[in-house]
Amino acid sequence: MEIPDIVIGRLPIYLRALTRMAAEGMEITSSHEMGQRLGISSAQIRKDLSHFGEFGKQGSGYQTQYLIKQLRRILRVDGEWEVALVGAGALGRALAHYDGFRDRGFRISLIFDNDPAKVGTLLNGFQVYDTARLGELIRQRSTTLAMLAVPAEAAQQVTDALVKAGVRGILNYAPINLVVPDGVWVQYIDPVVHLQRMTYYV
Amino acid sequence: MEIPDIVIGRLPIYLRALTRMAAEGMEITSSHEMGQRLGISSAQIRKDLSHFGEFGKQGSGYQTQYLIKQLRRILRVDGEWEVALVGAGALGRALAHYDGFRDRGFRISLIFDNDPAKVGTLLNGFQVYDTARLGELIRQRSTTLAMLAVPAEAAQQVTDALVKAGVRGILNYAPINLVVPDGVWVQYIDPVVHLQRMTYYV
Repeated sequence: MEIPDIVIGRLPIYLRALTRMAAEGMEITSSHEMGQRLGISSAQIRKDLSHFGEFGKQGSGYQTQYLIKQLRRILRVDGEWEVALVGAGALGRALAHYDGFRDRGFRISLIFDNDPAKVGTLLNGFQVYDTARLGELIRQRSTTLAMLAVPAEAAQQVTDALVKAGVRGILNYAPINLVVPDGVWVQYIDPVVHLQRMTYYV
Repeated sequence: MEIPDIVIGRLPIYLRALTRMAAEGMEITSSHEMGQRLGISSAQIRKDLSHFGEFGKQGSGYQTQYLIKQLRRILRVDGEWEVALVGAGALGRALAHYDGFRDRGFRISLIFDNDPAKVGTLLNGFQVYDTARLGELIRQRSTTLAMLAVPAEAAQQVTDALVKAGVRGILNYAPINLVVPDGVWVQYIDPVVHLQRMTYYV
């Protein structure tokens, strides 16, 4: 049976909360305790996790480290994924320097920009390559994940090149919807969309 | 009748697509055309919009500018909201310099950091204030929206201060869930959560 996408979407949230709990020294937790941290009902958490098996004994809670390990395995972040970054402007540079990727399964280690002043420079220890070499290098390294931090006008063209080179998952920071073929996943980050969602209520 | 939150969540996406269409010179559009750009069914778009009234005549499509104006009104972004930014590190600086806020209803014009080296400097033309003055200045200016670009460890404490000062909507970039009272909205941006959601499928 296929697991609903909305369930998959909650697993990274659970993993993040559990990792913090472990860092705080909590060896055991419960769906109740997780739910309180996350504002999600404990029944929902138990139901979500039950899609993937039994992770705790009735009444004795979850072993935090064990559940972390299982969620990493389910989400396939028990190793490290290379992520290509396209766009080394202010946002791209902030992403390249962000130290929250490594511990959570990702490493930005292939960086592109089309500005001649940036090409050849180092960003967080990695060389910035000309975007013209994007297809060649992504194919060579079999990179499957990319982040887009380019202007909206360039986003679809870069996406087409990424997909052609074999990228299957794109995290898009450009404020525009992308068209991709089946079998390619896109996630969007646009702060304005989130802000506008709140102004309706505030 | 209360409008489902998931519908509200799609309105900013519609507004973004329509704004781009208008920039491309499209004076008229349709739910079909919007759906193709967004990968959403035209029936869904018509149903979502119907919660708010009639925006087009049957068979003749939508006047792009008129629908933009109505969506801005519904989402309450027909004016400009002041947004407070807490954290002037790499991400905070990228956000402060991002030029995609102004046209879409927001302006980061009140900035805080607790680093003495940053306090008193200018960021995109605005002074960086000491986080210790957060409550005082937010109250004085009646700021209701804030962005959090601080380390996870500091996020809840800053949130408590923001809420106490009257902030009602928080866009949180720190990789941690926040606890807020009823009547305060939080939206989360965590690139790792988005990446982990894709690795399950890729």
